[in-house]
Amino acid sequence: MIFENDLVFIEIEPSEIPWVKVFTRREIKEFSECTTEEKLEIFRIIDIVEKQMISYFKADKINIASFGNMLPHVHWHIMARFKQDSHFPEPMWGQKQRQSNLTLPNFEVFFKELGGCL
Amino acid sequence: MIFENDLVFIEIEPSEIPWVKVFTRREIKEFSECTTEEKLEIFRIIDIVEKQMISYFKADKINIASFGNMLPHVHWHIMARFKQDSHFPEPMWGQKQRQSNLTLPNFEVFFKELGGCL
Repeated sequence: MIFENDLVFIEIEPSEIPWVKVFTRREIKEFSECTTEEKLEIFRIIDIVEKQMISYFKADKINIASFGNMLPHVHWHIMARFKQDSHFPEPMWGQKQRQSNLTLPNFEVFFKELGGCL
Repeated sequence: MIFENDLVFIEIEPSEIPWVKVFTRREIKEFSECTTEEKLEIFRIIDIVEKQMISYFKADKINIASFGNMLPHVHWHIMARFKQDSHFPEPMWGQKQRQSNLTLPNFEVFFKELGGCL
């Protein structure tokens, strides 16, 4: 976990790419069931994570998604994508395109810095 | 197109499931580059579309995603998902799970009503 407050917490998804998941602390099934406070907090975090991923990793694109089909607890994925990653331009849930050969700046440093920005 | 204003427009994605795409009118690459007005308008629309999809289709889950890897113009997918659809519980970009055999209420009526709610 890299961040938490009364409304949300953020976990790292272990992956070849920088990927975090933002969960509501309350177990809510659908995003529209969130309070305004929870929605705004999620949007604030998406905005900051996206900017930090672009600036630190020079990501080619940021992907954002909220599915929750298997785990019906509102959570948002935020992923930094790169033209050379294993799935680009497919979503990370799509068909693998190639063997990834990414050399990216240190993830640990990024996640620590990110926690400090939130 | 089922809705448009100065900030966004909404298109239908033809599919076995109810699926719409919300585009910013300006050609922006990343969500964090949107103005606060654009962001709030997108969130307002996601919220309404999600609620309407749940109420009209009795969807099992709503999926929301913004990738833009192929088309680097900010757009959000909002999809009503059903346990019997072709990909559930995988995302629609994932591996097909079964031949879909959905019988859903009329899509045209839904999209027309949805346009009126926005």
